[in-house]
Amino acid sequence: MGPRALAFDVFETVVDWRSSVIRQLEEFGQRHGLQQDWPSFADNWRAGYAPAMDRVRRGELPWTRIDDLHRMILEEHLGAAGITSICVEDVDELNRAWHRLDPWPDSVPGLTRLKERFIITTLSNGNMSLLTNMAKRAGLPWDCVISAELFHHYKPDPEAYLGCADLLGVAPDELMLVAAHPGDLRAAREAGLRTAYVDRPLEFGPGREAHHTEPDEFDVAATDFVDLAKQLGA
Amino acid sequence: MGPRALAFDVFETVVDWRSSVIRQLEEFGQRHGLQQDWPSFADNWRAGYAPAMDRVRRGELPWTRIDDLHRMILEEHLGAAGITSICVEDVDELNRAWHRLDPWPDSVPGLTRLKERFIITTLSNGNMSLLTNMAKRAGLPWDCVISAELFHHYKPDPEAYLGCADLLGVAPDELMLVAAHPGDLRAAREAGLRTAYVDRPLEFGPGREAHHTEPDEFDVAATDFVDLAKQLGA
Repeated sequence: MGPRALAFDVFETVVDWRSSVIRQLEEFGQRHGLQQDWPSFADNWRAGYAPAMDRVRRGELPWTRIDDLHRMILEEHLGAAGITSICVEDVDELNRAWHRLDPWPDSVPGLTRLKERFIITTLSNGNMSLLTNMAKRAGLPWDCVISAELFHHYKPDPEAYLGCADLLGVAPDELMLVAAHPGDLRAAREAGLRTAYVDRPLEFGPGREAHHTEPDEFDVAATDFVDLAKQLGA
Repeated sequence: MGPRALAFDVFETVVDWRSSVIRQLEEFGQRHGLQQDWPSFADNWRAGYAPAMDRVRRGELPWTRIDDLHRMILEEHLGAAGITSICVEDVDELNRAWHRLDPWPDSVPGLTRLKERFIITTLSNGNMSLLTNMAKRAGLPWDCVISAELFHHYKPDPEAYLGCADLLGVAPDELMLVAAHPGDLRAAREAGLRTAYVDRPLEFGPGREAHHTEPDEFDVAATDFVDLAKQLGA
């Protein structure tokens, strides 16, 4: 018996956050006449995200949605770069760059095939409005949108994986997490979910090292979503 | 300034629960060789729903999802009709009739137009899996699925309307509730939302009396979703 539903990690797994954020930072720079190393700025912005979530997970911060964590990190890096003359509205607009990430070329065709056979949902640490706006802009054909925000528990807390299965009305082992991050998949497996690893070698830009996974560590390992659809018989 | 997002009541407003449930009860009757007045059975099943939710709203029952409330009411009416020889699996299957409701003819074309201009979501007392399965089967093109289940507050509690706006990242007056039930709309207006009344004269079968609404009581009054799209400029 295969899974009944597939839950997808989103940043990196479904969308190419890095090129999308760099592109929007460059546009922001041009609009405001600012010179910066925008690829490094993007990498630093992203690098602040896991530690900020961990502060929430450890209870050092109350529940805070990703939009607000991204905003805190952005202000810090704008300040460090000496960019202090931007009005609040324009900083908010730049912060919403994370709502406007482009999918990988295989994402929409692969999801469309997988949707024929399975319930497909997000299971992301991104907040509901971020995921909803992103899906609308990018044409991601989700059956529903599920976020860590609904559980006030960020992945890899087990509450996020189990809460997703509960909302979908399926047992944990009827739900498969699809992700490009081995750590996410290991936590999902620990919670009783099935797991599919999808390789996204460009997450940190060209030439970075691949994630290390053990052979047969996950139920499925796929090169992209179309390959995943083939392997799952969709 | 118009609304940015539209939240839809679902049972009656989007789908024709009554014919859909009667049809499935008749199929169930044929499969099990049972003779009943299935239209009355459907009306009684539905009539048990508001009092059961009210028990949850008053705190007499802990949070209970609609699937489980429907199941309790169904067992009661099966028992009252002397139908006691059906196995649990078949009762569960019949209970999921509420996941398989057909949309009104204008629902999918109207939603498809409205989606071009607005974020469109459910805001229903139905649970997440019910709404997700229904949308998948019926091709309802929601941007996301939002249920009272996420707030543990059934409509017309204000937490449901305000919680929906919060998840979408919009102010209450940027969100419009679309519903065929004046009571739902009045509670949404009280919480600060905009309101659109859509007439669904067949909810309780042919020949029933229309809901009573005051002239101009709601921001918009429409005959169906295509008319609503026209009036909202979508």
